[in-house]
Amino acid sequence: MAYVEFNALSTVLGGSFTARAFLPGLDRLDLKDARHQKRYPVLWLLHTDGESSLEFLKTPVEGLAERYGFIAIAPDLHHSMGVDMKWGPNVEKFLTHELRGIFRHILPVSELREENFIGGTGTGGYAALKCACKHPSLFSKAFSLNGILDMERLIARTSAGEVTGVPQTAEALEAVFGGAGEFAGGPDDLFSLAERSQESVFYLCAEKGFDYHEDSRALAALLGEKAAFVSLDAGADCESCQVSMRGAVKWLFQ
Amino acid sequence: MAYVEFNALSTVLGGSFTARAFLPGLDRLDLKDARHQKRYPVLWLLHTDGESSLEFLKTPVEGLAERYGFIAIAPDLHHSMGVDMKWGPNVEKFLTHELRGIFRHILPVSELREENFIGGTGTGGYAALKCACKHPSLFSKAFSLNGILDMERLIARTSAGEVTGVPQTAEALEAVFGGAGEFAGGPDDLFSLAERSQESVFYLCAEKGFDYHEDSRALAALLGEKAAFVSLDAGADCESCQVSMRGAVKWLFQ
Amino acid sequence: MAYVEFNALSTVLGGSFTARAFLPGLDRLDLKDARHQKRYPVLWLLHTDGESSLEFLKTPVEGLAERYGFIAIAPDLHHSMGVDMKWGPNVEKFLTHELRGIFRHILPVSELREENFIGGTGTGGYAALKCACKHPSLFSKAFSLNGILDMERLIARTSAGEVTGVPQTAEALEAVFGGAGEFAGGPDDLFSLAERSQESVFYLCAEKGFDYHEDSRALAALLGEKAAFVSLDAGADCESCQVSMRGAVKWLFQ
Amino acid sequence: MAYVEFNALSTVLGGSFTARAFLPGLDRLDLKDARHQKRYPVLWLLHTDGESSLEFLKTPVEGLAERYGFIAIAPDLHHSMGVDMKWGPNVEKFLTHELRGIFRHILPVSELREENFIGGTGTGGYAALKCACKHPSLFSKAFSLNGILDMERLIARTSAGEVTGVPQTAEALEAVFGGAGEFAGGPDDLFSLAERSQESVFYLCAEKGFDYHEDSRALAALLGEKAAFVSLDAGADCESCQVSMRGAVKWLFQ
Repeated sequence: MAYVEFNALSTVLGGSFTARAFLPGLDRLDLKDARHQKRYPVLWLLHTDGESSLEFLKTPVEGLAERYGFIAIAPDLHHSMGVDMKWGPNVEKFLTHELRGIFRHILPVSELREENFIGGTGTGGYAALKCACKHPSLFSKAFSLNGILDMERLIARTSAGEVTGVPQTAEALEAVFGGAGEFAGGPDDLFSLAERSQESVFYLCAEKGFDYHEDSRALAALLGEKAAFVSLDAGADCESCQVSMRGAVKWLFQ
Repeated sequence: MAYVEFNALSTVLGGSFTARAFLPGLDRLDLKDARHQKRYPVLWLLHTDGESSLEFLKTPVEGLAERYGFIAIAPDLHHSMGVDMKWGPNVEKFLTHELRGIFRHILPVSELREENFIGGTGTGGYAALKCACKHPSLFSKAFSLNGILDMERLIARTSAGEVTGVPQTAEALEAVFGGAGEFAGGPDDLFSLAERSQESVFYLCAEKGFDYHEDSRALAALLGEKAAFVSLDAGADCESCQVSMRGAVKWLFQ
Repeated sequence: MAYVEFNALSTVLGGSFTARAFLPGLDRLDLKDARHQKRYPVLWLLHTDGESSLEFLKTPVEGLAERYGFIAIAPDLHHSMGVDMKWGPNVEKFLTHELRGIFRHILPVSELREENFIGGTGTGGYAALKCACKHPSLFSKAFSLNGILDMERLIARTSAGEVTGVPQTAEALEAVFGGAGEFAGGPDDLFSLAERSQESVFYLCAEKGFDYHEDSRALAALLGEKAAFVSLDAGADCESCQVSMRGAVKWLFQ
Repeated sequence: MAYVEFNALSTVLGGSFTARAFLPGLDRLDLKDARHQKRYPVLWLLHTDGESSLEFLKTPVEGLAERYGFIAIAPDLHHSMGVDMKWGPNVEKFLTHELRGIFRHILPVSELREENFIGGTGTGGYAALKCACKHPSLFSKAFSLNGILDMERLIARTSAGEVTGVPQTAEALEAVFGGAGEFAGGPDDLFSLAERSQESVFYLCAEKGFDYHEDSRALAALLGEKAAFVSLDAGADCESCQVSMRGAVKWLFQ
C-alpha cells in the first residue's frame, strides 16, 4: 500500500493544486513487467464540499486499492463543486482533461474507458455522476456515497436561508452555478443529464436518515436499469464509508 | 525548529483550509515557563497567486523563526488574493479575525499588536500591506517581497489580454474584485488605502528587473517616511527570498 | 476538527521526528477564555510496528477528539517498539519526557495526570501499557487495541523463524531489547511490570480470531480489577478500530 | 513543477517509509508521448543525519528538476547513515534495490545507468558516494554537498566524547557500523572503496570554514581525475545549497 500526496501546477486552474493518491503495494505491482507497460485501473475520487481529499484517508479505500489492484486519485476541489464555475476556475475541464493527463504521465494509470471510474461523497457524488453523464467516453462506471445530488433544490433552499448542511452561501453557489434561473436544464443539471445518459452505469448508496437520502433514490429511479441503488441502515457507515465504499468498489470490479 | 502543517475547519470560509507554520525549536521555547504563559511574536505570511503556502519552505523563514524566536503562519489563499471576494469567500475577514483566533487558541502566539506582523510575496505582498493599512490595530509592521501591488493596473492589463505573469483570467479577477469600475478607491485599493495609513510601518523589497519592481517603488514613495524601500540586484534572491526575507525579518525585530 | 502534522527536532532522538495530532475544532475550543489558560486532556497514541502515525487517520479518533474535547498526539516510532533501545535511541525517554515537554509548549495540552492518557494498536499497545505501568505519575489511564503484548514470546517465536506478522527480524528485536536472556523481568517486560502496577487503570480490547487475542486476555487477567477486557467479534473493527477506538475513548471519559 | 510525498511499505525495511520527490511540470513532460514510454533521468537524494528529506525543500532542487527535466527522489533515512546496519535495517540494500524498483514502477524514472545519479548533503554525501563506489552499474555520477565523509574519524571522535556536530552517540554509531575495529577497510569504508572505484565520476563541493571541508578535499584527491572538487566561500550556500546544488546539477547534465 502507498499513500501519496501531490502538489502540482495546473494550467487550467491557474496555479497549484493538491491531490492525494492511494496505490497498491509493491507486491501487487507487476515487478516482472520489465518494460513497465502495465497500467492500473483508476478511480477518481471527489470529496464533498467543506471537506478536502483528506476525507478519503478515513475510508477503506487504501486497503481496497491494495486488494483489487487499482489506483485511486482524489484532487482537492475546494468550493468548486467540480463545476466549470461561472465566476472561478473551470474545474470540470480540469477533472476531465488536465488531471487525467497529468497523472497518466506520472503514475501508471490506465487510459482505457473500461478502467476509468469516478466516484464521490456528498456533493462530490454529484460531481462524479455529472462527469460520468457528460463524458461517457472517459468513465465507464460512477458511484455516489451519501450523495447530495439535486443542486436545483440545494440552490433554492440556500437562497431561502434554510440550513442545508452544505457550507455554501447563496452567493457562493451563484459563483459556481450562476443565477438560479440559469441552472435548470443547463450543463450542470445532473437530473436533466441523467435522463439522456445512455452508456455508463451507476451505483448510488445512501444511509437511511441522511438528509439527502431521497436524492439518491430519485436519481436512481430516473437512471433506471443503468443504476443500482443501495440503502444502508442509519449509522452503518461509521461516518467513514466503511460499508458503502466497500460495496461501491466491489461493484466496480464485479 | 519545527515545521507544522495544519488542516482545519473555517466557519468563515465554509470548509477546511490548510496552513503551514514554522516554530522555534525546543531550545528556543522557554521551558522554565511553568505556567506556559509565554507568547511568541507572530508573522503572518501570504503566498503569491498561483502558488501555495509550500512556497515558504524554500525561503529561509524556518531558520529565521529559530534565530529570532517567532512563529510564522502561512495559510493557503488559493485564488482569493486575500480579499473578501465579490463572488467567493471572505478571505480578508478570515485572515484578520478567524485565522488569528484559531491559532491564538492552538499555538502560543501573541495577541499584541506590537508582536503581530504580516508579510507576503508577489500578490501576497499586496494582501499583506492591504491588511496592515486597513487593520492597523492588528498588525504593527508589514512587508512585501517582490510585491505585485497595483491591482488596478493588473485588472486593466488582464482585461486587455496582456500576459501579466499572474495566472488569473479577467473573469477570475472580477470574481475577486468585482467589475473594474468598482475597484478604484474601494476597500481593496491598496494605493488609496496607503494614502490614509498612519499607524503602521512598512518594508518593501524588490529585485531589479522584476516586472513589478515599480509597484514597490511607487507605493513606498506614497507611504513616505512610514516605508523602507530596498532594491536588490537581479537574481540576488535565488528565486527563494534568500536576501529579502532575511532583510525583512531583521527589519521586523530591529 | 483539525489534523496537524509536526516535523520537529528531538534532542533525545538526535534528529527530526514526525508526529500527527488531532484537535477539536474552533467551536469546541473555549474562545471566551481570554487568557487562554484552558488546557485540554491529551491522548498519546502509539502505532504498531511496521506502520506509522498515518495509521490513525483511518480510525475515528479525529471525530472523537471533536466530540469529547481532547487532543490526540501520535508520534512516529519506526522500529523502536517505544523502548529505550539497546542499540538505538531512547524512545521511552522521548515519549515520557521530551515529547510531552515539546507539545506542552506548543499545544494547549494538560500536564495533569488525570488528563493524560496513553493508548496504542498492536505493538503500540504494548508500548502504551508499558509506559503507563512504569510511569504511573504521568498517565492515569491506558489502553491497547488488538495489542501485541507478550514480547518475550514474540522474541522467542521470531528467533525460531516463525512467521509472526510483526515485520521484525531477530536481529532487529535484539537491537531493541538486547539478547533474549536479558528480557524476562527486565525494564521492558510488560507482564512483569503489570504484576506490580498499582495506580493506573487499563482497557484492553481485541478481536476474536486475531493472532494475539490471548495476549490481551492474559494481561487483563494479570492486572485484575484495574483492567477492563473487551473481546470483539472477528471483523467488527473494519480493520480501522471503528468499534475499539470508540469504546476506548468512551472508557477514558466515562 | 510538482512536489510529491510518498508513504509506502518496504519489505527490506520491514515497514512504512517516507520519501519526497520533485518532478518537472506538465509542460516539461512529453504529453505527445502517447505510449508514455518516456523515462526521465533520476537523481536519488540523501539527507544528512539528524535531518529528514524535508531538508531538500529548502534547496533549489525543485526548480532544477523543472529546468533540466529530471525527477529527484529523497527517501527518509533516519539514523541509518544509508548503511546495511549492524543492528538495524539493511538501508543500503533498500536504497540500491528496493527503492529503485518501487519508484520505477510508480514514476516514469529511467533504469539506465547513464540516467541514474545519486547525491547527498552531510552524511548523506557519504552515503551517496559510497553507493556509487560500491554499485557502479547502478549510478553513473554521484555528488556530495558539504559532505561528512570520513566515518572512521567520526567514529573515533564520537567515542572520544568530542562534539562532532553529528547527532549520533557512540552506541548509535556502533549500531550502524559495528565496533570501531570492524570499520577500516570494510564494506562501509568510503575512503577504502574510493581507492578501487573505477567507473563512476564524482563532484564534491564544500564551503570554506565548514568543519568537514577537508573530508571533501581529501577524498577528491584520492579519487583523482574521476572527481571534481569545488570549494565555496563561507556562507555562499545560504544554508540551503543555493550554489552547490545548482553547481552539482549543472555538472550532472553537462
